[in-house]
Amino acid sequence: MTDMLQPGATIGILGGGQLGRMLAVAAARLGLHVHIFEPASAPAAETAARVTHASYDDADALRAFAQSVDVVTYEFENIPTAALDLIESICPIRPGRRALATSQDRLVEKTFLNSIGLHTAPFAPVTDIASLNAAIAAVGTPAILKTCRMGYDGKGQARLKSPDDAAAALASMNGAPAVLEGFIDFSAEISIIGARGIDGAIACFDPGENVHRDGILHTTTVPAKIGPSLRSDAVLIAARILNALDYVGVLGVELFVTPGGLIVNEIAPRVHNSGHWTQNGCLVDQFEQHIRAVAGWPLGDGSRYADVVMENLIGDDVLRVPELARSGVALHLYGKGAPRPGRKMGHINRVTSRQ
Amino acid sequence: MTDMLQPGATIGILGGGQLGRMLAVAAARLGLHVHIFEPASAPAAETAARVTHASYDDADALRAFAQSVDVVTYEFENIPTAALDLIESICPIRPGRRALATSQDRLVEKTFLNSIGLHTAPFAPVTDIASLNAAIAAVGTPAILKTCRMGYDGKGQARLKSPDDAAAALASMNGAPAVLEGFIDFSAEISIIGARGIDGAIACFDPGENVHRDGILHTTTVPAKIGPSLRSDAVLIAARILNALDYVGVLGVELFVTPGGLIVNEIAPRVHNSGHWTQNGCLVDQFEQHIRAVAGWPLGDGSRYADVVMENLIGDDVLRVPELARSGVALHLYGKGAPRPGRKMGHINRVTSRQ
Repeated sequence: MTDMLQPGATIGILGGGQLGRMLAVAAARLGLHVHIFEPASAPAAETAARVTHASYDDADALRAFAQSVDVVTYEFENIPTAALDLIESICPIRPGRRALATSQDRLVEKTFLNSIGLHTAPFAPVTDIASLNAAIAAVGTPAILKTCRMGYDGKGQARLKSPDDAAAALASMNGAPAVLEGFIDFSAEISIIGARGIDGAIACFDPGENVHRDGILHTTTVPAKIGPSLRSDAVLIAARILNALDYVGVLGVELFVTPGGLIVNEIAPRVHNSGHWTQNGCLVDQFEQHIRAVAGWPLGDGSRYADVVMENLIGDDVLRVPELARSGVALHLYGKGAPRPGRKMGHINRVTSRQ
Repeated sequence: MTDMLQPGATIGILGGGQLGRMLAVAAARLGLHVHIFEPASAPAAETAARVTHASYDDADALRAFAQSVDVVTYEFENIPTAALDLIESICPIRPGRRALATSQDRLVEKTFLNSIGLHTAPFAPVTDIASLNAAIAAVGTPAILKTCRMGYDGKGQARLKSPDDAAAALASMNGAPAVLEGFIDFSAEISIIGARGIDGAIACFDPGENVHRDGILHTTTVPAKIGPSLRSDAVLIAARILNALDYVGVLGVELFVTPGGLIVNEIAPRVHNSGHWTQNGCLVDQFEQHIRAVAGWPLGDGSRYADVVMENLIGDDVLRVPELARSGVALHLYGKGAPRPGRKMGHINRVTSRQ
């Protein structure tokens, strides 16, 4: 492991939200220093040795940041390309640029997934009313129109119940390139969180089953209620993506369970909300696994030793903390200020049984 | 729980070593802010939102520190009394002053333990050669002479094989008040880590069995190889101490297993090295349990779900990290600089089986 960063080396993290915060804690546990780059004040600042508050178009700040670290990783995928170019001229970025370029754009992502033999919802590109009408003809309705870039937690999306909704849906895209996705008849959504080391080794956490509320992840339950064959399909899908992208780090893959098998909903080139259960279900959680990978360390033991229900605390859910603190669940709060509707304030892991 | 600190409140921690670092991480996980007070540069600085580097005789710094926090706790017991007086005039200190005063002085501690009906090694106070000779007459030899204050990891101690060693042992105390302890014929040393909440609730972690090397803790193994009756004795001893001190927080108690039952070696009014196994053996570890208590939260679920061997990485042991990273153990490194002989660089938890 000649590429293995030594304790005392520094990992740069782009983004200082709760994912960056939990990555910083995992890095500290391995004796690694952390430098967070984040435009706003944000939760990760409290758990990192060093923070740069600067904009992603501040070249001087980016350069100083990149020069101060041994490797750069990130907690979100929508990082401006120019910033990445500048950083990469100075130090390695893991996971690499191909993973970012693929996942930053829904159209590129779906095309990539199909190209490596994986199934997605039917989709078609949309830039104007003509291409939208063509897309509706190809994938049918109901369907969902999504901006190609920058969407998350249900933002940048419009549903089309029938072709009559086309004009309104297109208007809500504000001129941004979009993709029309056909609806999938699925019985469940599961996630698989996979990791690939710098040596090409792959380790996947057990798939979890997701339930959303108002477009935001509400709970992830492990084990997912799927049989062994779907379970191994999920692992094989994650492994195929990880290898095809020559990936280093943790990757989240959302999958639809359908009568015809698993369909990839989307991928995230980072630790993922649906992997938070690993903090109380595995010796090495997704955050440490990601830090191990990007630091060039061998992957750790991510085998699941408990059944867990992860539940997000969104907005005023955080007011339940006093009651939750008494209830025997594991609490993970992000130290954010006032609760706002839709704001992820923390999560709990409820261990429902042990193995 | 009217005294329960809300997420966003700040916990002040006196001391920025590895214990402060792991306390800071536990506080962050509960959404609490941390302010570390530490004279030197130290490991906890990297995981805390705010750090004051100042001396314990800097009244202005202490005052500003105390005013910036909601409650003060500590990671070591040898805090100057004047600093504590100043802090306590501004905000609460938990665990309270009685626990500190008791544990700061071996003579006071042993006298206290006997006064609540607990057994200690025979002991006698030593200030000069006359009192040392009287002490030898009372407790016999072999015996061990220890400074009353400021000793840790075997420092400030001298062994007396026979009365002939008296003068040399006394000289090594450098005039400090000391206590002569008779040797105990023990089969094992165990630790019990207990916690008491602000509401008086008590929870103890399962006792662990300690092995020392060169006067420094080498391993702690859970479960300790003791029967159920000694196990409950250990819990009752911890509970008696916690109640007698009206204690709030986590307390470490070292016990000798002897043919006549358990004998208290010493107590530490803080999280304890022999409790590090809880990080990978319990849902709520000793660090979170301590933060919960001092923040006025209900104690969490500290029941043990795994057999664990904790091993300290001392000095050059840290050079084994690459090999350990591959071996399936949980790594906990403190981010310290160069390894020095006797310096605690980190620890590993090896889960040997699960329940």
